[in-house]
Amino acid sequence: MSDQDDTDQMNGADSLVQTLLDSGLDTCFTNPGTSEMHFVAALDHVPGMRSILVLQEGVATGAADGYYRMAGKPACTLLHLGPGLANGLSNLHNAKKAGSGVVNIVGEHAVTHIELDAPLTSDIEGIARPVSHWVHTSMSAADVGADAARAVQAANVAPGQVATLMLPSDTAWNGGGAVAPALEPAERPAFEAAALEEAVAALSGPDSLLLLGGAALSAEMLELAGRIAAKTGCKLLSEWANARQERGAGRVVVNRVPYPIDQALETLAPFKRIVLLGARAPIGFFAYPNKPAILTAEGTQITNLCTTAQDIAGALEALCGNVGAADTPPAHVAEAATPDKPSGPLEPGGIAQALARTIPEDAIIIDEAITTGRAFFPATAGAPKHTWVNNCGGSIGYGMPVAIGAAVACPDRKVMALIGDGSAMYTVQALWTMAREGLDITIVIFANRVYKILRGELTNVGVSNAGPKAMDMLSLDQPTLEFAQMAKSMGVEATQVTDCEALELAIETGLAHKGPYLIEAVM
Amino acid sequence: MSDQDDTDQMNGADSLVQTLLDSGLDTCFTNPGTSEMHFVAALDHVPGMRSILVLQEGVATGAADGYYRMAGKPACTLLHLGPGLANGLSNLHNAKKAGSGVVNIVGEHAVTHIELDAPLTSDIEGIARPVSHWVHTSMSAADVGADAARAVQAANVAPGQVATLMLPSDTAWNGGGAVAPALEPAERPAFEAAALEEAVAALSGPDSLLLLGGAALSAEMLELAGRIAAKTGCKLLSEWANARQERGAGRVVVNRVPYPIDQALETLAPFKRIVLLGARAPIGFFAYPNKPAILTAEGTQITNLCTTAQDIAGALEALCGNVGAADTPPAHVAEAATPDKPSGPLEPGGIAQALARTIPEDAIIIDEAITTGRAFFPATAGAPKHTWVNNCGGSIGYGMPVAIGAAVACPDRKVMALIGDGSAMYTVQALWTMAREGLDITIVIFANRVYKILRGELTNVGVSNAGPKAMDMLSLDQPTLEFAQMAKSMGVEATQVTDCEALELAIETGLAHKGPYLIEAVM
Repeated sequence: MSDQDDTDQMNGADSLVQTLLDSGLDTCFTNPGTSEMHFVAALDHVPGMRSILVLQEGVATGAADGYYRMAGKPACTLLHLGPGLANGLSNLHNAKKAGSGVVNIVGEHAVTHIELDAPLTSDIEGIARPVSHWVHTSMSAADVGADAARAVQAANVAPGQVATLMLPSDTAWNGGGAVAPALEPAERPAFEAAALEEAVAALSGPDSLLLLGGAALSAEMLELAGRIAAKTGCKLLSEWANARQERGAGRVVVNRVPYPIDQALETLAPFKRIVLLGARAPIGFFAYPNKPAILTAEGTQITNLCTTAQDIAGALEALCGNVGAADTPPAHVAEAATPDKPSGPLEPGGIAQALARTIPEDAIIIDEAITTGRAFFPATAGAPKHTWVNNCGGSIGYGMPVAIGAAVACPDRKVMALIGDGSAMYTVQALWTMAREGLDITIVIFANRVYKILRGELTNVGVSNAGPKAMDMLSLDQPTLEFAQMAKSMGVEATQVTDCEALELAIETGLAHKGPYLIEAVM
Repeated sequence: MSDQDDTDQMNGADSLVQTLLDSGLDTCFTNPGTSEMHFVAALDHVPGMRSILVLQEGVATGAADGYYRMAGKPACTLLHLGPGLANGLSNLHNAKKAGSGVVNIVGEHAVTHIELDAPLTSDIEGIARPVSHWVHTSMSAADVGADAARAVQAANVAPGQVATLMLPSDTAWNGGGAVAPALEPAERPAFEAAALEEAVAALSGPDSLLLLGGAALSAEMLELAGRIAAKTGCKLLSEWANARQERGAGRVVVNRVPYPIDQALETLAPFKRIVLLGARAPIGFFAYPNKPAILTAEGTQITNLCTTAQDIAGALEALCGNVGAADTPPAHVAEAATPDKPSGPLEPGGIAQALARTIPEDAIIIDEAITTGRAFFPATAGAPKHTWVNNCGGSIGYGMPVAIGAAVACPDRKVMALIGDGSAMYTVQALWTMAREGLDITIVIFANRVYKILRGELTNVGVSNAGPKAMDMLSLDQPTLEFAQMAKSMGVEATQVTDCEALELAIETGLAHKGPYLIEAVM
């Protein structure tokens, strides 16, 4: 039955939108198609859902990831059938690895239409499953509300999960929809209390490491970690990639385990005892010939006190208390520091100085700067308080979409997206949505015009004789990508810089600008 | 063991590339990462494979689809782990529905690394399966060659299949690789000979229809269909979407079943008997409330003589002979026709005239013009001989990547890509690869600045009261996408036109241009 035939009954789509709202969701990143038209129509019938249009679905799923990291609650996506979900899959992979809660609503053919194998028919559940913790297809309009409430509940399981709900078009347009009440979110499971004593004993002196991840990287938790370090002399590190880490002057400094395999091995070699708190035992990002996959030295004692899904606050408080550090002033608190004004051609050190000088209080830094960005983290420790966001799933093209989600979640904070040129091109359509929504995002594209990380990896994996065809596959300079021009073509103000002074000025201009601003930093 | 440790043994990557070459493949569309570096290095060791770099994997898989349609043999793709495959998934969906053979080589972590659940670890086989006919993971360097030969064999199963081979990095870098000989391609299965008599009886008079698809749309097969129509008085139609249809002056005209549901029902209503030859029984692209999903009138007799996978040439020859049409001159042969020069603002009719006046002999037309393009097909029937290519899977963003593959397969033919503005943005990164490879593609973007098809579909699915929020989700005009500027930013020459005269001139300029040329047609 059609929408207008049955005005006294709520249809499935309206019950879906109202249930999502009642479950606390109010933001939808969308690229809809025919099978989602009733959901789109419901956005008018049911007030309260902010809908943000994107031009490619990877932008929607990445934005939902960024939104969760900063808002602490899921957004929903609205995607068109299996192929629409497929386009969003790689950023759902990243969201899953980051522990971000996302509720995907994926249109599906009417139940009776699926068996006909129309052109857009596909195994949507099959496409969803590798990146989803929870997958379900609604079978009637009456089920849609309750299914949606369960999807939100699944997405809210700590630290955050990907829930994918398929909405056959007839379940959207049929009457009989029923709004479902919000379901109680699950509590975080307790930490490994049995490991507490071992953890207390393990943390003594500089050959012991407290390795932090997940929710342990909030400002409050970092302060507890700083107290523990002060009391026990242990070192602090965080994982290479973190969904969200609070930093800046006045906060406890925690550096990351390096990405390059040899540096990672060297950093971790001194530690005889490691306590994991919201982090996993360090392993190589990739396997390399003749190099270990386990990054810790042989014989290192590893104590897993708390996974990223468990009660991290409880674990840190217990650990802090049991080492007797509850009243110890924290160690490694960053002092405010402004580096000298950099000058000359753009190189990682000078760029890091320019960033450290310009990061504003409460900024959100989305870091997808890859090789250029390795110098940024230590250099910016003394900048004003800010949040640092990494790619936890390794699928590049996450940065600009995640910046959208962060900016939507935190309209009063400035977002800086630091993006390699190779990375930028996977989801460059994000620029249009930034302009459309007037989001305060300053994007810096590091245009070294090469997949530079892969040049290094060629050697790491044992290729010593790469020839011209191989090098050509890692080069982005024929033709040159003109990012400032590309940004303008999608409605984003932009400029190009080639030295450190101009970069610093351009960042200041971008931050003062209302709406997005792109800086192409030609290296 | 590493590449250089073991110079007397061939590694798995080299055996893979040599086996692909020996099996007849010579083109690879790639976006590699760390786990594929040995394959990349092998491109230098093993001469003969043309490798084409893309900036997003949907371009690689779409290009492989277009290549198969025009070259009649598969290309391979080289994709980075699960997320790289995921980015290419929607165009693999389209390739699968088009019956295009594709060999995907997907990097995977070293076998010993997978269990560690590194950031980029995912269920790659799970991601591959919904869009692949054949999925396999190589387990050792010694297996890689034989696995690759089987992948090519699977891709060549008629009409063409998607084969996905995972290559763990240690199977690429280890020694012990062995080149495998090409495997014999499977024969097309015979057509339904038992249905031949019924098909002969069915085709009599204008209330009978011969519905063609797949390989039945080659110039030679269309001529047989034209003879049958002349002899029996039956009508000829092709499916709405066809992988490749030959047309133009001197060829048998076969129009397509319309996309809009009401037009499709009207077109098919007169037929009492339908013979399927490489085509499927017509069904709705989507389900619509209160409208049938089966597009043929109730009681229509449907005779399935030959599927798209079976021996279409044998079926058409037998049918032609058995109706006694072997020597009958074909009906419906298009006469050369040049419409009047169009003028005034851009609208579908005038655009179709401009196309009909400019399509060069042997052109390949990639049609993703969606709403604007519905007028193009009939209007261009009398243009010089050309090939028309449709999207068979319905996932938009197929056009520009498929144009790349067609241009690579047919360097001596002009390619025209007719693309809606909404469609263009899904895989706009394709422009850079067109410029990099200097491909002779004239791209026309129809900038109506709206997802126009969805405006129509809102009504079709029964939404009569769409409000401003719904309409906003279907609009692309805030901000305006400046396609000419965007093209230039990726190294593609471009212009903007707003009337029919300028469009015709711009198409002529584009066709005379060496390399890609983009025309933004503002409607």
